[in-house]
Amino acid sequence: MRTVIYPGSFDPLTNGHLDVIQRAAKLSDQVVVAVATNESKKPLFTVEERLELVRTAIKHLPHVEADSFDNLLVDFAAKRSAVAVVRGLRAVSDFEFEFQLALMNRKLNENIETIFMMPKDTYTFLSSRIIKEIARLGGDVTEFVPDNVRLALARKFAKGN
Amino acid sequence: MRTVIYPGSFDPLTNGHLDVIQRAAKLSDQVVVAVATNESKKPLFTVEERLELVRTAIKHLPHVEADSFDNLLVDFAAKRSAVAVVRGLRAVSDFEFEFQLALMNRKLNENIETIFMMPKDTYTFLSSRIIKEIARLGGDVTEFVPDNVRLALARKFAKGN
Amino acid sequence: MRTVIYPGSFDPLTNGHLDVIQRAAKLSDQVVVAVATNESKKPLFTVEERLELVRTAIKHLPHVEADSFDNLLVDFAAKRSAVAVVRGLRAVSDFEFEFQLALMNRKLNENIETIFMMPKDTYTFLSSRIIKEIARLGGDVTEFVPDNVRLALARKFAKGN
Amino acid sequence: MRTVIYPGSFDPLTNGHLDVIQRAAKLSDQVVVAVATNESKKPLFTVEERLELVRTAIKHLPHVEADSFDNLLVDFAAKRSAVAVVRGLRAVSDFEFEFQLALMNRKLNENIETIFMMPKDTYTFLSSRIIKEIARLGGDVTEFVPDNVRLALARKFAKGN
Amino acid sequence: MRTVIYPGSFDPLTNGHLDVIQRAAKLSDQVVVAVATNESKKPLFTVEERLELVRTAIKHLPHVEADSFDNLLVDFAAKRSAVAVVRGLRAVSDFEFEFQLALMNRKLNENIETIFMMPKDTYTFLSSRIIKEIARLGGDVTEFVPDNVRLALARKFAKGN
Amino acid sequence: MRTVIYPGSFDPLTNGHLDVIQRAAKLSDQVVVAVATNESKKPLFTVEERLELVRTAIKHLPHVEADSFDNLLVDFAAKRSAVAVVRGLRAVSDFEFEFQLALMNRKLNENIETIFMMPKDTYTFLSSRIIKEIARLGGDVTEFVPDNVRLALARKFAKGN
Repeated sequence: MRTVIYPGSFDPLTNGHLDVIQRAAKLSDQVVVAVATNESKKPLFTVEERLELVRTAIKHLPHVEADSFDNLLVDFAAKRSAVAVVRGLRAVSDFEFEFQLALMNRKLNENIETIFMMPKDTYTFLSSRIIKEIARLGGDVTEFVPDNVRLALARKFAKGN
Repeated sequence: MRTVIYPGSFDPLTNGHLDVIQRAAKLSDQVVVAVATNESKKPLFTVEERLELVRTAIKHLPHVEADSFDNLLVDFAAKRSAVAVVRGLRAVSDFEFEFQLALMNRKLNENIETIFMMPKDTYTFLSSRIIKEIARLGGDVTEFVPDNVRLALARKFAKGN
Repeated sequence: MRTVIYPGSFDPLTNGHLDVIQRAAKLSDQVVVAVATNESKKPLFTVEERLELVRTAIKHLPHVEADSFDNLLVDFAAKRSAVAVVRGLRAVSDFEFEFQLALMNRKLNENIETIFMMPKDTYTFLSSRIIKEIARLGGDVTEFVPDNVRLALARKFAKGN
Repeated sequence: MRTVIYPGSFDPLTNGHLDVIQRAAKLSDQVVVAVATNESKKPLFTVEERLELVRTAIKHLPHVEADSFDNLLVDFAAKRSAVAVVRGLRAVSDFEFEFQLALMNRKLNENIETIFMMPKDTYTFLSSRIIKEIARLGGDVTEFVPDNVRLALARKFAKGN
Repeated sequence: MRTVIYPGSFDPLTNGHLDVIQRAAKLSDQVVVAVATNESKKPLFTVEERLELVRTAIKHLPHVEADSFDNLLVDFAAKRSAVAVVRGLRAVSDFEFEFQLALMNRKLNENIETIFMMPKDTYTFLSSRIIKEIARLGGDVTEFVPDNVRLALARKFAKGN
Repeated sequence: MRTVIYPGSFDPLTNGHLDVIQRAAKLSDQVVVAVATNESKKPLFTVEERLELVRTAIKHLPHVEADSFDNLLVDFAAKRSAVAVVRGLRAVSDFEFEFQLALMNRKLNENIETIFMMPKDTYTFLSSRIIKEIARLGGDVTEFVPDNVRLALARKFAKGN
């Protein structure tokens, strides 16, 4: 059985992330969506909130589960017996950063492969950062995130965050 | 009458910005230079200071005015009845970020077009960030910013900011 | 009255080109689609065929016309009293090439501005080159080109070109 | 059983290609190395020669086979019941071209996924084009290609090709 | 005698930096490794610590010395009578940022040239930022930094920094 | 004595090339401008013509000479006892191609370093290809090439080439 890891901050999960998860599910036997703690990035949602948002959004997808990690990605991947890490690529700027990370991860554990996939073309402009900015300014994000994420963003910004 | 919006942080306005403003003025009936509040970026100058620096620097240009906004850019553009948003492109790294924003803005309001223009080639290396760094280290920025901006930078850094 | 030039090889016109033409028409008073002779590129269609394909595809658009040119673009633009040249940008690789051309055109005639626009996101993958390759291999290009272009491609490749 | 296609011109196969083939083999049940006819590119080796060079170089790899195709890649992939096309990415310039192709292939057949993999970092500078140039100028390509390819290049250039 | 400056934050020095230093030493008579104070970046190591880490790591290299600076790079270079600034390039994203800086430095002092060099290809994925992240998460950085830097990282993170 | 090689097609030499030559001369004891035969590129000028155009344009520069080569660049550099190859970088697209070549050259001969330099910013848009296109269409290239090159282009295109 081939397990792949789909790591990220997911602060919060977008429809672009969901699209990649579904594509990865077609190519493997199990997808583990891995929420990085990333406290240095000062996320809008806590790791528990982000994990819960992912879990609710993927619960209809068989062979997909979510987990969080605060260690090296390759150590987490090895613990989960994953053969590969999946990353979505939207643009050239993504690509270079991802390339550096993937090369480093290969140095740290050469048994973990990295594979890159493309989200749906109408999602190439999506990023968690832009979504948060739009929600903060009162824009409508219905098209861009799952419904539970839309509600969580509304609650977060209603509190004056 | 065709109005275009030229949005940015303008922290502070540079000669590269002024160059784009003048080019945009040749192609439209009115240019609104729109200063984004952007408090999360911790600007060196307050939005009022930035707006004032822009107003002084453009006062000799007919059909150009300045305003500030703290809402979604497309909402501001619609309120001003603009047909397009103008953005300057200097380099590939600009391009990708601008592309993502423009695609998202089109999703949010498909009536607002984004057009990209090139500043004068001798200004391609200019950015507000580099200007602030040079001024902070006591370098001469006379060639790179309007005179009122040069003086404002001198005052800001003289205060030990 | 502001005239803009939209130059290209148009070998052949795609729906991505048509999309940019319609966007440019919203921002100007007249759009001249300018078919470059480009004999060195060994086009699939002759300049007369390419011009005819464009003319048929734009005939429903007011304030849009087509012409061909075999001189310097800035000279053609000046002859047509254009204020700007419009170019579509789909990707980073486009951007650099277009940037170089635009800077050179500015050196040759500083009165002609270049403005860049984005086609619809679902057209970012479109190029005349890819369309010709698909048509040559018998793929269906209905979604990607106007109907008259689809028929012209079918005739061209049926002849064993 | 999951089959993936690894398409290319392979004019000729390099160690970078072989490296991607081996990585793809770890993630799937069968890899089909698919040699594109590509007559318009005027390849150095005929499609039969390129296919033979690949077959010899992969014969020690289980679950890997080679084939050639002269139709649309997605049609070939469907005929082979593949779930995905694998492409190696070495650099930003690769990335954009590959992205365009992958988006177009998805339009033509949405059931065929494209996944991108990275060759070993010491192979990022390798390309069939550079290898042919070095061989043509009498340089030593032992490190860069399988032994049968090295011999084929030597024979080709000895004939004064 | 030709002196060149190799400036950076060196927070901390990596084997990639050391590789560029040795290459620069082959092309000049003296290399000054110049540690930028950069307090705004909130470095992990103080400027004194970073300078000490560099000095220990380069002590076996003739004609190489280390210094720190908190003024404009071109002013520091002029004070040291340098003919050029050396910068390592690993990737496209480096390139654009470095290009902007180099053009600006040329405006500030046209006598100081900037030259770009490539580190060893197996170091292209290395960055001080990634090294700190790996060390913070308990990963092994032996291959990526000089031994004194490895120990300093271990001490820093043992303190719970 | 440190010799550096500045290789290229120089079809024909531009002011951007001359600018890099002069910058390289400040950093080394001798610059050898090396004209590549490159017959596969179907140059406009023969290698003898290109060499002659370079020689005339550099004759006022001390410590700069021109030569041609038709072997591997690293072999030519070794024969001339050069420590480094100099390449001008204008843009991201240059960068990636140059990077690949430089890495390959390092594999072929690790004693030959590659250093990258930037031409004057007003020359970043210059390329031999664009110059030839402008000259072919009757545009004025006085600003972009040395006078002897301008005359040679005029003669070439007057003959109806």
